Amino acid sequence: MEIPELHDFLAQEFPQVADEVRIEALTDDSITVRLKVSDRHLRPGGTLGGPAMFMLADVAAYCAILSRIGWRPLAVTTNAGIDFLRKPAPGRDLLCEATILKFGRVLVVVEARIFSEGTAGPVARANLTYSIPPSDRPSEVIIYLNA
Amino acid sequence: MEIPELHDFLAQEFPQVADEVRIEALTDDSITVRLKVSDRHLRPGGTLGGPAMFMLADVAAYCAILSRIGWRPLAVTTNAGIDFLRKPAPGRDLLCEATILKFGRVLVVVEARIFSEGTAGPVARANLTYSIPPSDRPSEVIIYLNA
Amino acid sequence: MEIPELHDFLAQEFPQVADEVRIEALTDDSITVRLKVSDRHLRPGGTLGGPAMFMLADVAAYCAILSRIGWRPLAVTTNAGIDFLRKPAPGRDLLCEATILKFGRVLVVVEARIFSEGTAGPVARANLTYSIPPSDRPSEVIIYLNA
Amino acid sequence: MEIPELHDFLAQEFPQVADEVRIEALTDDSITVRLKVSDRHLRPGGTLGGPAMFMLADVAAYCAILSRIGWRPLAVTTNAGIDFLRKPAPGRDLLCEATILKFGRVLVVVEARIFSEGTAGPVARANLTYSIPPSDRPSEVIIYLNA
Repeated sequence: MEIPELHDFLAQEFPQVADEVRIEALTDDSITVRLKVSDRHLRPGGTLGGPAMFMLADVAAYCAILSRIGWRPLAVTTNAGIDFLRKPAPGRDLLCEATILKFGRVLVVVEARIFSEGTAGPVARANLTYSIPPSDRPSEVIIYLNA
Repeated sequence: MEIPELHDFLAQEFPQVADEVRIEALTDDSITVRLKVSDRHLRPGGTLGGPAMFMLADVAAYCAILSRIGWRPLAVTTNAGIDFLRKPAPGRDLLCEATILKFGRVLVVVEARIFSEGTAGPVARANLTYSIPPSDRPSEVIIYLNA
Repeated sequence: MEIPELHDFLAQEFPQVADEVRIEALTDDSITVRLKVSDRHLRPGGTLGGPAMFMLADVAAYCAILSRIGWRPLAVTTNAGIDFLRKPAPGRDLLCEATILKFGRVLVVVEARIFSEGTAGPVARANLTYSIPPSDRPSEVIIYLNA
Repeated sequence: MEIPELHDFLAQEFPQVADEVRIEALTDDSITVRLKVSDRHLRPGGTLGGPAMFMLADVAAYCAILSRIGWRPLAVTTNAGIDFLRKPAPGRDLLCEATILKFGRVLVVVEARIFSEGTAGPVARANLTYSIPPSDRPSEVIIYLNA
């Protein structure tokens, strides 16, 4: 899937967030996704909350995986970790750069960094693991014979 | 802060989520928070998404901390980890049980489990760390003399 | 596998640590493992280091899994997270209480708390995920047919 | 501290591991540390175990911090997360590349990747957080007056 198809996917399957995120760049093993910051994401003190950043990293990683395996809304987040490093710059969009570290038979591990647009130090880093069900695999017959 | 004050706090400082969560129980070092599940939280396949569960754990831990230190919207999430264990039961609210494992001078560490109401196996577990700025400390004078 | 078989397993497969750990209790979904603290685990300042606690949690979780699936040294740690909460009490053994939160088809998730023997507040909490290869499953034929 | 001083530090404060690790490169915010693989680190099946990789990441991050603040064995690991991505190549040393993502007043966050020497895909990624006690700060008087 290329960027337009991924945007179609988000519009159909994630209508709650599709209007807030935009894929800016996509390669074989990396993706950059923008979060258009709005009041909805703000936390006491006017900064952007952790859940919004978690959502951004999750959407970015999910799209990076779908761009490889195609439109199958079955990948499941199994684990995620996030460090919040700096306050986001007020009024700026967030940019999430995610990289696939491993694309295994069962698990995919993605690493992400989130920046306030136009600033240098990352506001967060995250790691996310997804489980890919067998039906998401290329068409084939796998027979496990356990002696 | 008791449950009514915490609900006031959420209504004022987290208006985006205040109508979705309700504190069900509160002790010195634990809290139970309900997430009223709505379409807004759903993910492809009709299950509840990771970001909604992350938000629930974050709000629960945050309220557990505020109930101890009072209304100071300055605690900051510094780190969080979450394992997604089972699909939430469709149409059921989520209940998050959070426990303060450590309330240190600078850092507070909270552990949480999330259940679909009325079911046994947890749908997620999470750990969250918060940094408490000095101004959130009880009134006192701390003098650090570094030789 | 019961406790004696697990000790045999450790002696044969983990000779580097087998003399340092002892399984104290074992149920269907939980285990308690002791780490006999020695100089080898100490860190600057005389406290026990993070790697020793990580090893203890890993061994405990691993043994809890083996007690279910039998002697198959193929389970692989895929993810782990650990919060260090308090300094261990000097000169005391560590006790790790681990609980299996999910025993899935592919992934097993374990939660653990580590205590200095005879003290109340945990010195660490950990979460660990293991991947169980198909050959570790009970003897059967699994055929995945992806249409 | 430069590389020779860091090796002196390890020899004095971490005698258990000092002969197994060697700092290969050091900049202001990054470090590369080698783990000389030996039988002591091996796990069932002949691969290197998670605890050894955790130790390597911890030592690398710790040395990166000490190179900035000088010989004060007081930094404490507060949180760590690790994803194990691939089996290490048998018989090869491990190289850990660690980067300081944030050097805050209280917390330092480090990200690391571990490779089998001479191979491309990382065998593990890790994130580690350290707390720097006030006494590790430059000599000064800090007075917190909480009204």
